[in-house]
Amino acid sequence: MKKGACIIGQSGGPTAVINASLLGVVESAEKCEQITKVYGAINGIEGIINHQIIDFENEDKDELALLLTTPSAALGSVRYHLEHYTKDETPYLNLIKVLAELDIKYFFYIGGNDSMDTCQKLNEYFAHIGFDCSVIGIPKTIDNDLCFTDHTPGYGSAIKYIATTISEIHLDTNCYKKGRVTIVEIMGRDAGWLTAGAKLASINNLGADLIYLPENVFDVEDFLCDVKKLYETKQKALVVVGEGLKTANGEYLLKYRHFNRADDFGHLQLGGVAQVLCEIVNDELGYPIRSIELNLPQRCASHLASKADIIEAYQCGKWALDKAVAGETGKMVIMKRINNAISYDLTTLENVANKIKYVPDAFINEAKNNITDAYLEYAIPLIAGEIPIPFSGGMPRYAKLKKKII
Amino acid sequence: MKKGACIIGQSGGPTAVINASLLGVVESAEKCEQITKVYGAINGIEGIINHQIIDFENEDKDELALLLTTPSAALGSVRYHLEHYTKDETPYLNLIKVLAELDIKYFFYIGGNDSMDTCQKLNEYFAHIGFDCSVIGIPKTIDNDLCFTDHTPGYGSAIKYIATTISEIHLDTNCYKKGRVTIVEIMGRDAGWLTAGAKLASINNLGADLIYLPENVFDVEDFLCDVKKLYETKQKALVVVGEGLKTANGEYLLKYRHFNRADDFGHLQLGGVAQVLCEIVNDELGYPIRSIELNLPQRCASHLASKADIIEAYQCGKWALDKAVAGETGKMVIMKRINNAISYDLTTLENVANKIKYVPDAFINEAKNNITDAYLEYAIPLIAGEIPIPFSGGMPRYAKLKKKII
Repeated sequence: MKKGACIIGQSGGPTAVINASLLGVVESAEKCEQITKVYGAINGIEGIINHQIIDFENEDKDELALLLTTPSAALGSVRYHLEHYTKDETPYLNLIKVLAELDIKYFFYIGGNDSMDTCQKLNEYFAHIGFDCSVIGIPKTIDNDLCFTDHTPGYGSAIKYIATTISEIHLDTNCYKKGRVTIVEIMGRDAGWLTAGAKLASINNLGADLIYLPENVFDVEDFLCDVKKLYETKQKALVVVGEGLKTANGEYLLKYRHFNRADDFGHLQLGGVAQVLCEIVNDELGYPIRSIELNLPQRCASHLASKADIIEAYQCGKWALDKAVAGETGKMVIMKRINNAISYDLTTLENVANKIKYVPDAFINEAKNNITDAYLEYAIPLIAGEIPIPFSGGMPRYAKLKKKII
Repeated sequence: MKKGACIIGQSGGPTAVINASLLGVVESAEKCEQITKVYGAINGIEGIINHQIIDFENEDKDELALLLTTPSAALGSVRYHLEHYTKDETPYLNLIKVLAELDIKYFFYIGGNDSMDTCQKLNEYFAHIGFDCSVIGIPKTIDNDLCFTDHTPGYGSAIKYIATTISEIHLDTNCYKKGRVTIVEIMGRDAGWLTAGAKLASINNLGADLIYLPENVFDVEDFLCDVKKLYETKQKALVVVGEGLKTANGEYLLKYRHFNRADDFGHLQLGGVAQVLCEIVNDELGYPIRSIELNLPQRCASHLASKADIIEAYQCGKWALDKAVAGETGKMVIMKRINNAISYDLTTLENVANKIKYVPDAFINEAKNNITDAYLEYAIPLIAGEIPIPFSGGMPRYAKLKKKII
């Protein structure tokens, strides 16, 4: 079994628990005889190419321990689209140079389906040139849209935050006799997993009246009909919508907003569909309205993280390290659920790279305006438990790494 | 000392701790020999007029105890503008009828400056017709804009939520090398107390780069200049703005948004100034942008409430009851701070009704784009401590009252 250094990178959008996975790799690596050094890449593979690398030996153990409950990517993240080496070998050559120099034999990348594409390309290149470096992907995405895994680290905490916030908004918006139509917008371009999470608030009868997922064609007339029925009965309505809702012709509903910009990848920057719907409700039905976009806190609210999620994220990191030193490469860690117990396994990177898992029909009601109890059965274990974050002077105390560049 | 029943109402926008004040009155009233019955008014004075009244005896003690950490107004709230009795005596006559019928000698109203106006008018009317009912107001507003009190119950929890969320957004938005201009919008039509609260995140170096309050004229050119300087240095900027920002001609900046509606009182419905500013930044400077409106969770996020705030809210309720039975009327409870210890006192209702306390100049920096350390000294004690909320099955467990109408 080979000896050498390992390097860990974080990639894509942050979550509340991506640092728990990082800690899982680091702590296991430090105990592992085959690992000679534990490095961190600042801003993912861009950090390796630019030699922005830290040595975890230089970090205080107490601060590292705080990573368990610290949101965002402590090493910095990146959205870097790696071309296949047959198209452009330059970044690969730069990477190899640094990896060889530091005797890196193990490469861990914590990310979503885009990041797994990077892992796959790297692994393929390493095999192609005979460079002995194991590549293991560690799943991370609040979107829960990775295939071959029961769920993804980050999702449980995101839906715990979403459902709690929906409960609180429910209590707030119900305190007046005559209320508004309140429309809450949840993240998720194509898959409605996060939006479905709002359903968890209904366990305590503090849920939304209507939930619309991007998986289904959004019919404005049906929607207005649903809202009208509710408002006429109880003078208020709480509606939850996925940001990526599309009409029958396949167009994003929010293209009807006033302000449209593209994101870094040239995709339409999402956000604003709740406001678009509010304007429609106000124009067509004349009801008072309020739109709420839960926005970034969905992916960084560590103060409401799920204990189950934190533990699983950590275990995914630990499992990745264990399997890599046991000889695995070109794989991503997955979670399986049997009788509500979680076990860990691996799948090939190509099984997950660039693929999207949608919310299945069984989780969506027939009218396509709410979520079924089958979803609740799936989701409740994912939000179980709380790990109280340390507070100092009334504020959460998050990890502060030195990140001294070697 | 008179014996009789008491009634408690909640009015205006909810907070994370308005129910703690309610509990403070109820628990003290139940122990008080002069109080024969403890009633609750559903939806404030509207509930009294319409005989929508509950008897707290019918509620489970365990559920009542949960009020300490339950957001929103458990009795329901109301925005009811009571005319002076010389203009319209009808609502007063209806009120008196119900109060007399139930032998109500003590009236407690938990609310902000509008609600204190209601209290004052009622008290004046009771005196005018010689109706023996004491009126005591209990302060409540996340806005912290009530005069004659050091701060208001509800404010500490709101800024604890705001500052924590800003910290988490700071970590999130800083994880990419090249970021965006992120503009976060905070509640507060005229007073910038909540917006100033974002400064607390800077204690852990997780604060915003710029903070603009509605107290100061907002100059778009100065703002763009500030943003440009930041973005050129570090390729990102985190900006916090109050929703009520106005330009030099006294107009709301958000009147430049695309969608404008009036609220229940005919005021311009706020919300959207961050988006307006984002569009300006993108148009003028071409930087990538993201707007975030913290919205309703600012006033209902009990899961991040301040222990100091909860305790003070409870004490304000208790103090109100104690002072009422001791013979006081026509007053509102206030808090005083001497050597960072809080004591309770009363002020006349006319001192607070319809008046607004603004953020003082000493709390705003010279360039009017940030908050001073003097504010931190003022605000840090208000967010001290946490009371863990009970969770059940991964979700917060909030009070469920039966609210059986008598």
